[in-house]
Amino acid sequence: MPPVRKRTRKIKVGCVEIGGDAPISVQTMCTTRTTDPRATVEQTLALATAGADIVRVTVPDDESADGLAFILWVLSSSQNPPPIIADIHFRHDLALRALDLGVDALRLNPGNIKDADKIRLVAREAKDRGIPIRVGANAGSLHTQFLDKHGGPTPEALVESAMWEVELLELEGFDDIKISVKHSDPYLMIESYRLLSETTDHPLHLGVTEAGTSYAGTVKSSVGIGTLLAEGIGDTIRVSLAADPIEEVKAGKAILQALGIRREGIDIVACPTCGRVEGDVITIAGEVEAALADMKSPIQVAVMGCLVNGPGEARGADVGLALSKNGGTIFRKGQRVREVNSSEMVEALLDEARALAEEEGDRIRLPIVSG
Amino acid sequence: MPPVRKRTRKIKVGCVEIGGDAPISVQTMCTTRTTDPRATVEQTLALATAGADIVRVTVPDDESADGLAFILWVLSSSQNPPPIIADIHFRHDLALRALDLGVDALRLNPGNIKDADKIRLVAREAKDRGIPIRVGANAGSLHTQFLDKHGGPTPEALVESAMWEVELLELEGFDDIKISVKHSDPYLMIESYRLLSETTDHPLHLGVTEAGTSYAGTVKSSVGIGTLLAEGIGDTIRVSLAADPIEEVKAGKAILQALGIRREGIDIVACPTCGRVEGDVITIAGEVEAALADMKSPIQVAVMGCLVNGPGEARGADVGLALSKNGGTIFRKGQRVREVNSSEMVEALLDEARALAEEEGDRIRLPIVSG
Repeated sequence: MPPVRKRTRKIKVGCVEIGGDAPISVQTMCTTRTTDPRATVEQTLALATAGADIVRVTVPDDESADGLAFILWVLSSSQNPPPIIADIHFRHDLALRALDLGVDALRLNPGNIKDADKIRLVAREAKDRGIPIRVGANAGSLHTQFLDKHGGPTPEALVESAMWEVELLELEGFDDIKISVKHSDPYLMIESYRLLSETTDHPLHLGVTEAGTSYAGTVKSSVGIGTLLAEGIGDTIRVSLAADPIEEVKAGKAILQALGIRREGIDIVACPTCGRVEGDVITIAGEVEAALADMKSPIQVAVMGCLVNGPGEARGADVGLALSKNGGTIFRKGQRVREVNSSEMVEALLDEARALAEEEGDRIRLPIVSG
Repeated sequence: MPPVRKRTRKIKVGCVEIGGDAPISVQTMCTTRTTDPRATVEQTLALATAGADIVRVTVPDDESADGLAFILWVLSSSQNPPPIIADIHFRHDLALRALDLGVDALRLNPGNIKDADKIRLVAREAKDRGIPIRVGANAGSLHTQFLDKHGGPTPEALVESAMWEVELLELEGFDDIKISVKHSDPYLMIESYRLLSETTDHPLHLGVTEAGTSYAGTVKSSVGIGTLLAEGIGDTIRVSLAADPIEEVKAGKAILQALGIRREGIDIVACPTCGRVEGDVITIAGEVEAALADMKSPIQVAVMGCLVNGPGEARGADVGLALSKNGGTIFRKGQRVREVNSSEMVEALLDEARALAEEEGDRIRLPIVSG
């Protein structure tokens, strides 16, 4: 049972709904140069295959806008291309150009396009085309107006900066908006979104910005994004790592999976192999995870090393193996299926998992809970 | 600024305080057999060196109790051995034996020692020796009494099971107690501890049980433990992975670091290298992290690829590098220090970080916030 979500308004980025009762989507961003359309298209499609629901590309200059034109044209003839968001900083004219090119959404940074008239012009053009805008405030690039007022990139400064731009957009009757208030400190990020969520019912895009290298960045993002999702806050997420963006997608999906928000593929419950363990849980769990890596059905497989929590967890999972001396017991949907010896137990567990997936169909379960 | 912690009572496991204003400690558990004292002592000391504040060993039978005797004897002549907790299931006589052997704490599972008289006897013996007990309920081994009443391992069932045993201990005037209510589902774990925290002011030991393999298990634990810590709940933590327990310690420390609860060593803020990036952030961040891996001082180093958030984040960190065309700018404590070219910038950044660590002393900062 996933957390009950705070109800927000719904917007649509290309074919992907965000907010309201829409599934929480996973975003990422290309690391290729937008001036290299071939590499960017390739990466975009690889990210979509890895599970990215939406892909963002940066448009920092005219050459990148030229690249974007080509990228959108190539993607339009691809099978199931993900929606593309243009990331805009400093230059509102590039936002207008991206709209003209047919991008699925814009991201504007209130910290570096400061002219109200320019922002309102972008709002009018986006409104005419029915294209949403993310107002993306970031602790590293806050407008000095808010930094000075709050004495630094505090949660209040981030939220005020974002809401300043939201109100400008709304003055044009534009409300096709999602908002982010990212910070590189996970706890300040949590506090910022908690405050933002109390302030607005626009859908929220969650992320810990500049989270760092793959390991520490995944932990920071799991803590920051996970805490907010567990409190019912957040409609779309992006993990930011200094790593291949495939890692960002993997981490984003793992966070949603951890909270039961998205269930897809194998979920291993395995004990931490204390001195009670009656077999090699680490190896067995690794073998099972690898063998079922391509399975789409949301099957939970328990690999338990002893009799303390073993039978309980093994019974609770879809299929399970509880080890004992010289073998183990296979469970399926709470029922003891059979005793197996050591040499056959991994295959027996895989057989049960595959049989269950077959019976239930290779479906993907996306539980949606709103309130 | 870390989250404000809910105030709990304080207990002491060996030399390690838990609860109240004590730093949040990181625990782990040996995967060696307790019947193999040599391997267990070796692993215990390696875990302590890796940063484990407390180490648990399982005592499932008489041979393990014999091993425990030997382990405690060897550790008593080691330098700074961590406190040792004996993990007890099914047999209260092994709890009594562990107390006699001089263990620093017991863990009892209310799901499998069900006789009130036996539990009260253990409480009296522990009280006489001033040895604390963790009441450790676990979704995989709940007493049928609570499973039946609640229709499964729900948060209510876990909390009731734990509090049933806590009340038995308190009947003996024993209140040297910490409590855990672990679940393999991170959100049910979060809900269980939220309920437990409302129910009691005993210190809480947090963990997602049987979290699985290294990657998914680290994400699940970061989400589960991180959410509770961000809500001010939790006094000691243990990450449970089907992996080398060194990985558990690493993940536990990374979770505390992510929330600013513990600061020790290098913290990299690095941008996710979008198409705007002016240099190889991934490589530079990796090089810096590796070069400073042994540093104890809590130094935050920013490696930023462009001018959007770069200067802001680089200024906010202790030392920073914001890349630009053909080089970058080095920052220290918010001040621009100098411009560097590509060939010298990594060394220049490392020099600044090391100089700062030198000046500030090789100290470890442990911020403690309670309320």
